[in-house]
Amino acid sequence: MGTGPFPQHVIARKRDGAELDRGEIESFVRGATDGSWADYQLSALLMAVFLRGMTPRETAILTEAMMHSGTVADLSSVRLPKADKHSTGGVGDKVSIQLAPMVAACGVAVPMVSGRGLGHTGGTVDKLESIPGFRTGLSVSEFRAQLEKIGVALISQTAELAPADRKLYALRDVTATVESIPLICASILSKKLAEGIDVLVLDVKFGRGAFMKSKARAHELAVALTSVARAMGKPTRAVMTSMDEPLGHTVGNALEIAECVACLKGSGPVDLMEVTYALGEQMLVLTGTAKDPAAARVLLEKSVSSGAALAKFRELVAAQGGDPRVADDPAILPAAQIKVPVPSPTEGWVRGVDALGVALAALRLGAGRAKAEDGIDPAVGIAGLAKIGQHVAKGEPLCIVHANDKARVAEAQAILARTITVGSSEVAAAPLIGEIIG
Amino acid sequence: MGTGPFPQHVIARKRDGAELDRGEIESFVRGATDGSWADYQLSALLMAVFLRGMTPRETAILTEAMMHSGTVADLSSVRLPKADKHSTGGVGDKVSIQLAPMVAACGVAVPMVSGRGLGHTGGTVDKLESIPGFRTGLSVSEFRAQLEKIGVALISQTAELAPADRKLYALRDVTATVESIPLICASILSKKLAEGIDVLVLDVKFGRGAFMKSKARAHELAVALTSVARAMGKPTRAVMTSMDEPLGHTVGNALEIAECVACLKGSGPVDLMEVTYALGEQMLVLTGTAKDPAAARVLLEKSVSSGAALAKFRELVAAQGGDPRVADDPAILPAAQIKVPVPSPTEGWVRGVDALGVALAALRLGAGRAKAEDGIDPAVGIAGLAKIGQHVAKGEPLCIVHANDKARVAEAQAILARTITVGSSEVAAAPLIGEIIG
Repeated sequence: MGTGPFPQHVIARKRDGAELDRGEIESFVRGATDGSWADYQLSALLMAVFLRGMTPRETAILTEAMMHSGTVADLSSVRLPKADKHSTGGVGDKVSIQLAPMVAACGVAVPMVSGRGLGHTGGTVDKLESIPGFRTGLSVSEFRAQLEKIGVALISQTAELAPADRKLYALRDVTATVESIPLICASILSKKLAEGIDVLVLDVKFGRGAFMKSKARAHELAVALTSVARAMGKPTRAVMTSMDEPLGHTVGNALEIAECVACLKGSGPVDLMEVTYALGEQMLVLTGTAKDPAAARVLLEKSVSSGAALAKFRELVAAQGGDPRVADDPAILPAAQIKVPVPSPTEGWVRGVDALGVALAALRLGAGRAKAEDGIDPAVGIAGLAKIGQHVAKGEPLCIVHANDKARVAEAQAILARTITVGSSEVAAAPLIGEIIG
Repeated sequence: MGTGPFPQHVIARKRDGAELDRGEIESFVRGATDGSWADYQLSALLMAVFLRGMTPRETAILTEAMMHSGTVADLSSVRLPKADKHSTGGVGDKVSIQLAPMVAACGVAVPMVSGRGLGHTGGTVDKLESIPGFRTGLSVSEFRAQLEKIGVALISQTAELAPADRKLYALRDVTATVESIPLICASILSKKLAEGIDVLVLDVKFGRGAFMKSKARAHELAVALTSVARAMGKPTRAVMTSMDEPLGHTVGNALEIAECVACLKGSGPVDLMEVTYALGEQMLVLTGTAKDPAAARVLLEKSVSSGAALAKFRELVAAQGGDPRVADDPAILPAAQIKVPVPSPTEGWVRGVDALGVALAALRLGAGRAKAEDGIDPAVGIAGLAKIGQHVAKGEPLCIVHANDKARVAEAQAILARTITVGSSEVAAAPLIGEIIG
């Protein structure tokens, strides 16, 4: 601590638009990790970075310093090529849960560390925890042992990996410094590269239900992510995907797990499978497991039709203490007591299903957290969601509200009735998969 | 707290360049005062204000909210018109100490709250405390009682007045958010207007030894200060003064007090008296005590020649517990044990006396504080400082180092030898008093 630059000097340099050097950035990250910078100094620098930006060189140094703020998992004992996927987040985004076993069934290890949800609906970790007994809180050594054994592990963020990111992310959330491309890049990549992976595939979402509403900003983020990762020597590709309506037909933790099981059995919703395949293709291509996306697609489809992916999922659940019967009988998942449809007010075509509105309804039902310390009800949510372009009869359900608290049902219904709009003319759904970058 | 806007929403609005409304600014100031905003949220907003600026309307609301964060002294029981002076700070700036009794001797009450020095040399409060027994820590009610009785009081900042400024100033110092015109305005004016004054005169310094190095930035600050004060209904004028070389011949707490006594006896240095008169003139004119600066000058000169100002100083010192003999015999002040000259290396004319270099030498001798918690040696400093344009013989002292620690003498001498430059041609001193604004 005594030898680093003064925090206020580093802050002043970024404030004035200078490019920080390695020593300055490392002092900041060390300060976040060991407390040698006060929180008010960290947040002042975060705001200066938000408003002044960072060069690709600064972002790469920041990512590297954050990645090395804790353990970098050594997975050299895992003989398979190692790939992970990260999504910038969307409503109904349960892709990881079927993708990881599908890719693992194709011979690629998937060491995946995921987050909990905040603000919107539950995260991947919350969804997995709706499986009775499923443990996500593995240590790095348990994580490694499981990867050696079955080639896949889905765990929650641990204090061992990228602790500087945990600290900075919590501060950014309460100081209006979240939506900064260099800070997002460093946050995502520091965690992912600390997992010990060989290659990384990113799902960068744009649209009304995405973190980045505009396609241009999402594109900018995708370019930044892939170029920083490349500068750090990790083959990385970003797939841009649209997030206007939720992915699949369900939003809610146990409901989404049941939908993932359907995907693994070959009966998943088309849109959800399309995104799953697009990401899986890049994972197989980047690891050299398939020569091109078409060949990768064949392997992935075969992992589903052969039952190998479902078997890998069953293995994964059992390895992490969960009840493996979930792979055969989703009825063992927690279920809501109240199921009420939201009927279409008219005959016509579904024009819009605002992902944020659906997320808000799910949040009101108890499927997500408004604050980090809030609990989650794994059973509640929305199922049977109509898709944009679908024809509906008058009175036909646009979705089914799954609730445990009678008082919340009317509010959720009202939100959903506003959220799902039906028009009198045919509507074509916009393309889901956009540009591939990197 | 429960009813105000969320801190992160206020921060995000300023981050995006919006004009904050009264409720948002008041929430921020209340948050700084009662702790309902975390320090990291205060500092994130300070950085956003630094980089995005504030409109005059926002600055006025901020000033008002900070002024009302504590007591606003009610001096209605003081029958005289009430004027104060504030300087943006410079090296050897001891003006307040002779100015306050001179103006008070002319029938204007001077309720003055001053700061301690940080970084440079001692502040007015530190200088006054070198007078044996002198107390600066008066409560607001003691302050009022003394003003009623003798028309002048020089005290240190109390927790009662503008507590939000104390909090924010401390944060700004360690988060590189000091040099922001709206934040400086609100800081200065909230404290000064909480004193209960009728009019305010500002000494806005520019030059190498000033807080604002550039004349243009200092001018911008002077315009902002006077227009915000006017918007708050306080007649205010700013006098721009140059701060390239220190004011007067001394830098150091007791040494400066002795120089102030000389000023009050009519034998003060020309430059120091010129600034003192320029500020005093505006105080007398703004309060209606004199019809114009020339008439004010006559009154102020008379206060010195008649001995009335010196008598008022003696009263002031006695009222605040100090030894009033200081007005007659500066030898009662603490004196340094070591006095060593810095000789001129050559015959010629003094070309430059870098105020920052002199301040640094004084700091090394123990006259100032590097950190807020550091102690001060009242006796040490630099006396007999040559002035720019002065002719010196080879070997003639350019100044005298007053020290108590032998080990520090050589370092101070070396700094001063670099700091005071002598050239072979005549040099004219630049004008000291610049534009008057407001």
